[in-house]
Amino acid sequence: MTTTREAPARKLTAKGLATRERIVKAAAELIYEQGAQNTNNEQIRTAAGVSGSQLTRHFPTKESLVRAVLAWQADTIVARHQAPELGELDSFAALRRWADSYIASQDMLRGGCTFGSLAAEVVKTEPAHRDAVADGFERWQELFKRGLSKMRERGELRPEADPAALAHLLAAAFQGGALLDQAAGESTPLRDALYGALAYVESFAAEH
Amino acid sequence: MTTTREAPARKLTAKGLATRERIVKAAAELIYEQGAQNTNNEQIRTAAGVSGSQLTRHFPTKESLVRAVLAWQADTIVARHQAPELGELDSFAALRRWADSYIASQDMLRGGCTFGSLAAEVVKTEPAHRDAVADGFERWQELFKRGLSKMRERGELRPEADPAALAHLLAAAFQGGALLDQAAGESTPLRDALYGALAYVESFAAEH
Repeated sequence: MTTTREAPARKLTAKGLATRERIVKAAAELIYEQGAQNTNNEQIRTAAGVSGSQLTRHFPTKESLVRAVLAWQADTIVARHQAPELGELDSFAALRRWADSYIASQDMLRGGCTFGSLAAEVVKTEPAHRDAVADGFERWQELFKRGLSKMRERGELRPEADPAALAHLLAAAFQGGALLDQAAGESTPLRDALYGALAYVESFAAEH
Repeated sequence: MTTTREAPARKLTAKGLATRERIVKAAAELIYEQGAQNTNNEQIRTAAGVSGSQLTRHFPTKESLVRAVLAWQADTIVARHQAPELGELDSFAALRRWADSYIASQDMLRGGCTFGSLAAEVVKTEPAHRDAVADGFERWQELFKRGLSKMRERGELRPEADPAALAHLLAAAFQGGALLDQAAGESTPLRDALYGALAYVESFAAEH
């Protein structure tokens, strides 16, 4: 990730770090609700319970805050995909559990993917954030690629299965399905997309 | 579509209609380049070669203009999918041609889907546009569903193929792949996603 380009967190005291994190978390929630462009300093200040000068000391510009939120959402989504029940995303059952944990979730209908919906909002409007968007997607997709690679190494997937390509399919089906769910206000598109993508992955299962 | 909620085009003279279309087209191009939030009246006025009063007469608010651009982009994408070389998207060859017409296109890398990238920007920030976003996605997905239904009726797809579900997979793989392409600045994610989705569709081919 590109944390080095953000506010120099290493110079902060423990209290300063806690304040910074409170701001990022409050901003992340507001931005997830209503989009980055509709979120202003006043709302973030109030939600985080910080003063204007605290906010600008940590994040002199809105751009720097959006960048920190992108990194935070990427960390959060990566952590969620490393939850114990998902193992290392290295079995068909774990991949199904992953899909089912999102399908028909109210959050997905309301706001889509916590990282992807912000990525989609800023990828065009804020070219300066494109590397942070790319980094987040890459870290997330890497988890699928690694899990699928293990399955192939263990002979659960046939040798011709391409972990990188299958990871792209799973990631794209997820992001596109999340957008279509949000638009339609119902959960069939994401379900159909993920189940279709998973069935395709499963078509590479080695026969025993 | 929800054209009835836009400026009452039916009352316009031919000249008025032409002006209106020039504005929408100029706005659509600017918004595709830089996003809706970065596009202002002054830029649109200049690009369309209209006066401020002409602009506000046709589109009293930015919201009304963004709505017209959404409808215009939906019309454009639907028309593109009805191009003669794609037939009625009712053969494996036509679906491959469709995918190949987008994969590695410079436009996809630069700005993603002309309709979907705007949809993703506004779906959360402008709840009032959600129905226009939903309508556009629905019209577009309907084309795939219809083509796949024909293939099933003709016995080219086995009876268990679900045209609506496969259409969701194709649409999601496309939208998600377009976003990942834009973020990564390279065309592998969309290619892998579409080829994977198409291979899954083809797995329902009837055996002859």
